[in-house]
Amino acid sequence: MTLPTLLVLDAEPPPRLGRLTGRVRVEHADATTLAERLPSADVLLVWDFTSHAVREAWPGDGPRPRWVHTASAGVDHLMCPELAASDTVVTNARGVFDQPIAEYVAALVLAMAKDLPRTWELQRGRTWRHRESQKVAGTRAVVVGSGPIGRAIVAVLKALGVTTALVGRTPRTGVHGPRDLDRLLARADWVVAAAPLTDDTRGMFDARRFGVMQPSARFVNIGRGGLVDADALADALARRWIAGAALDVFEREPLPPDSPLWDVPGLIVSPHMSGDTVGWRDELGAQFVEMYERWEKGRPLPNVVDKRRGYVPGH
Amino acid sequence: MTLPTLLVLDAEPPPRLGRLTGRVRVEHADATTLAERLPSADVLLVWDFTSHAVREAWPGDGPRPRWVHTASAGVDHLMCPELAASDTVVTNARGVFDQPIAEYVAALVLAMAKDLPRTWELQRGRTWRHRESQKVAGTRAVVVGSGPIGRAIVAVLKALGVTTALVGRTPRTGVHGPRDLDRLLARADWVVAAAPLTDDTRGMFDARRFGVMQPSARFVNIGRGGLVDADALADALARRWIAGAALDVFEREPLPPDSPLWDVPGLIVSPHMSGDTVGWRDELGAQFVEMYERWEKGRPLPNVVDKRRGYVPGH
Repeated sequence: MTLPTLLVLDAEPPPRLGRLTGRVRVEHADATTLAERLPSADVLLVWDFTSHAVREAWPGDGPRPRWVHTASAGVDHLMCPELAASDTVVTNARGVFDQPIAEYVAALVLAMAKDLPRTWELQRGRTWRHRESQKVAGTRAVVVGSGPIGRAIVAVLKALGVTTALVGRTPRTGVHGPRDLDRLLARADWVVAAAPLTDDTRGMFDARRFGVMQPSARFVNIGRGGLVDADALADALARRWIAGAALDVFEREPLPPDSPLWDVPGLIVSPHMSGDTVGWRDELGAQFVEMYERWEKGRPLPNVVDKRRGYVPGH
Repeated sequence: MTLPTLLVLDAEPPPRLGRLTGRVRVEHADATTLAERLPSADVLLVWDFTSHAVREAWPGDGPRPRWVHTASAGVDHLMCPELAASDTVVTNARGVFDQPIAEYVAALVLAMAKDLPRTWELQRGRTWRHRESQKVAGTRAVVVGSGPIGRAIVAVLKALGVTTALVGRTPRTGVHGPRDLDRLLARADWVVAAAPLTDDTRGMFDARRFGVMQPSARFVNIGRGGLVDADALADALARRWIAGAALDVFEREPLPPDSPLWDVPGLIVSPHMSGDTVGWRDELGAQFVEMYERWEKGRPLPNVVDKRRGYVPGH
């Protein structure tokens, strides 16, 4: 019997894969070898989720993996028309990042409300300067993106007494449609971008939308850099259209040292780490192994991405 | 009819007092004039709650205010044996600071879990350095101080999924007694000091107690500076007995510019601002006016301090 071939896009072996020893042949690829190895792989595990290699290497036709799994929530880095048109199943790491990212958003919201960045700055200068801060309970948040990450953010903010509105592509119970967005933005104290990056969402936070927000509003992006026109955000902060912002994700990552975003006043820059709590790689490995064991038994896979929409459609 | 005299310890008139116009004669005092004016006052409002003048100026016997109200939760700055022994009623601002302080503690806990201080430092250096952070849900916190502030802290941490234990002077349902403290400290990820400063609590967080804590534990003090041996804390951080700490209160405030605490690695210093959210002075003023209106009708006052214990006993 020939073992199925699992091709891992990463030089390092992911944790927990040892459990599959004897049941799968594991090969590794990087951006330079992926195109050559893809045709002979049954399954592709996109472990290096910062890589855009899949998009470039995906074979137009001919043999290709029947299943592609990415160790990330977003799939924008691997989707291409050929993959979308194929019968290859694409799955993601839905679930692993929900609670960590929700906590990270709460950390940023509370840090901005309590003026912690300024506290650190003053501490460096050994300066005692009392300031009034903001109560978070009773403020309003709009969370854009109604997947499990957006819903986890809503749950944590609600637990802090924040009034929340969730915006998704399709209006349904508890979820506003895109038509409500501008009206909600105009009343929000906190705007959180947690949507997948698709043709519909690319650049959705632009100069016009920052202009709609309140001067006291703060904006947080933990989704994908492409959701935001970062120049427009920097401009909105400079003109005081909004009061502050935090970006954990960027169009180009790592953010280059010469990017002007590093020192925009009122902007917190963090290195795409919102979902990555201690043990996250283990969790991602365990999740893949569990999914692989379903796949080898011919059972249906969870977390199947709607390749046209670019995300896992949910309830 | 002679109007009652309300003596305000502060040069500035507190907000909302206008409502009492025509019903009270308002006088002001500072540290130098307090002793002289106290005997002719019916009510003393300690509006400048950073002042220790009451302790020094309180008359041993003879005429004195029948009621002293402090615009703070703690009463340690005004209590003295003569005041404790007198029949003067002392009240505090119980309630105003609960939610703001609870949010502030949550902000510090989340900021430390998500390594935000380091993120700011790296941002200043335009350095992209991904790190793993900690999940807060599922961690354990011990909150010392079972008054309304301690209970509000427990509520907010619980809402974030933290397992909490509350420690107070008197064990009761939901509250551990002092005997459980060391055992709880040994298992805690977060230790929060929210107790009143009394003879029993002074210096309770000392070298021995920091030694009991886990190397991964973080300590937060939003109570009173005197609860903590700050030198022992700095030492515990240097020896990595614990992983981090945040102090919002100090033995001497403002913290002098030459204090070594400003740059202890792993220590966050903030200027006694945890409870002071926008509108707090208005709330304190409104709370006093409401209490005054009870007092002038001869109705019982809320928030009456047990002067022997040094706090408002609660359920």
